Amino acid sequence: MTTDEAQFPKVTVEQINNFIANELRFTSAMGITCEDLGVDYGVVRFRFDERWTRPGGVVAGPVLMALADLAVYVAVFTRLGIVPMAVTSELKTNFLRPAIGDDLLATSRLLKLGRRLAYASVEVVEAKNRDRLIAHATSTYAIPD
Amino acid sequence: MTTDEAQFPKVTVEQINNFIANELRFTSAMGITCEDLGVDYGVVRFRFDERWTRPGGVVAGPVLMALADLAVYVAVFTRLGIVPMAVTSELKTNFLRPAIGDDLLATSRLLKLGRRLAYASVEVVEAKNRDRLIAHATSTYAIPD
Amino acid sequence: MTTDEAQFPKVTVEQINNFIANELRFTSAMGITCEDLGVDYGVVRFRFDERWTRPGGVVAGPVLMALADLAVYVAVFTRLGIVPMAVTSELKTNFLRPAIGDDLLATSRLLKLGRRLAYASVEVVEAKNRDRLIAHATSTYAIPD
Amino acid sequence: MTTDEAQFPKVTVEQINNFIANELRFTSAMGITCEDLGVDYGVVRFRFDERWTRPGGVVAGPVLMALADLAVYVAVFTRLGIVPMAVTSELKTNFLRPAIGDDLLATSRLLKLGRRLAYASVEVVEAKNRDRLIAHATSTYAIPD
Repeated sequence: MTTDEAQFPKVTVEQINNFIANELRFTSAMGITCEDLGVDYGVVRFRFDERWTRPGGVVAGPVLMALADLAVYVAVFTRLGIVPMAVTSELKTNFLRPAIGDDLLATSRLLKLGRRLAYASVEVVEAKNRDRLIAHATSTYAIPD
Repeated sequence: MTTDEAQFPKVTVEQINNFIANELRFTSAMGITCEDLGVDYGVVRFRFDERWTRPGGVVAGPVLMALADLAVYVAVFTRLGIVPMAVTSELKTNFLRPAIGDDLLATSRLLKLGRRLAYASVEVVEAKNRDRLIAHATSTYAIPD
Repeated sequence: MTTDEAQFPKVTVEQINNFIANELRFTSAMGITCEDLGVDYGVVRFRFDERWTRPGGVVAGPVLMALADLAVYVAVFTRLGIVPMAVTSELKTNFLRPAIGDDLLATSRLLKLGRRLAYASVEVVEAKNRDRLIAHATSTYAIPD
Repeated sequence: MTTDEAQFPKVTVEQINNFIANELRFTSAMGITCEDLGVDYGVVRFRFDERWTRPGGVVAGPVLMALADLAVYVAVFTRLGIVPMAVTSELKTNFLRPAIGDDLLATSRLLKLGRRLAYASVEVVEAKNRDRLIAHATSTYAIPD
């Protein structure tokens, strides 16, 4: 349901993971990596680590937001290649169920890629229970000139 | 512009900072602390650290979202005392200007405290240039029964 | 991807349209009706009428928001029956492409139905070109006690 | 807290109301007019009319969203003059308290005016009880080239 047809992603999982390792220190610090991607979508994983939990033992909200944000960044890269200066314009997250003790996967879906703005939705699920929707996010990225 | 009158906050800056140190490991790890509070508002500070930057040297979006989220948590605590199980229901952040090389302050304002939901807005500014609005967020918290 | 299994919707298209005609005068005035529904989703239609356009001849934003809001209301009703006092807590809409001169369909998908809150996403498309995503919305409803 | 200093608004209340009457038929139909404005803000009024209520006799959500949307449009016009093709990119509304039987006022505040995007927050209150916050909205507008 995107604007035009692109048959192949303009980036690979390996390129994304190198970019994260070299440029996104906070993402690395949180243990987030890219797991899969295709035209208009990206899948990123948070490896559960209790350092990043909040009271109740659940994964902290900012981790889920970081995961969603990265998933959208990746989806944009699948169409434009790695464009580091693409920046988040707005991101809204709804926290639906607590995430306890398991890795998380965030899958983005690019719904619009314009000249100036990109828009995507993201579903965050537990890696071992992919029917359990933990959080849902939507985000607009600004594309540099 | 909130529902009723409360003359004194039900928590102190010291209590919040102890709570952060003991219970919010991710917040501690990011170098975020509470700086001020009063009935219906809280001010939290991110100490600039280039580990938490993204390409361009600007503070990473997830840090701003973590800061906003904590500021709302604190605002809720000023009315209810520390209620660890109050949880974020939704949080939207608009990223307005890049934050480069300086501490950041997030100030929340509680606009509604209901029986079940609290709602607040947050302004994130640079500590040395408080007229420079870096990000603006709004968030709903669910209050436990 | 919702909390539990419900095999049949607790409401029919006819019941929704009677409810709209009798209770939702603004929805009736805008020419919005329910077209289809099933467990956890609803489809509502806006019949194009140039009275509800904005400069450029495109359908006005508030019409799209009204359409999204109603689609979520219907999705909630498919699980709970008609609960008039379920109310919108928050609704965010992203306007992706202009809608010109055609009927619009909004399809909601309930992603969480809790005891107190329901959350859904909505896609708004043109009736004659259903691959053209006009707007995307997400919304939380508060369920009465 | 906006980007630069503009001493005088580039539009008058009368010009806005002529624009509404001539170009925004849905806004006219809802009985919404501009009441006041200044650099970076606008105040718009909804005249209570029970045709636009929902069950419970409260003003319908889409009216509040239309009101917020217009208030932001006006705030943008105070800086750029009337630019009909400025369009809403995203709008999020939180519905905080029911509005019953009174006129409503929405006041916008422009927090960022960039080359491509404008961002504002909006407070909707009852005309006779301006401390009663009915809804709070935030919105991004896209500025045409």
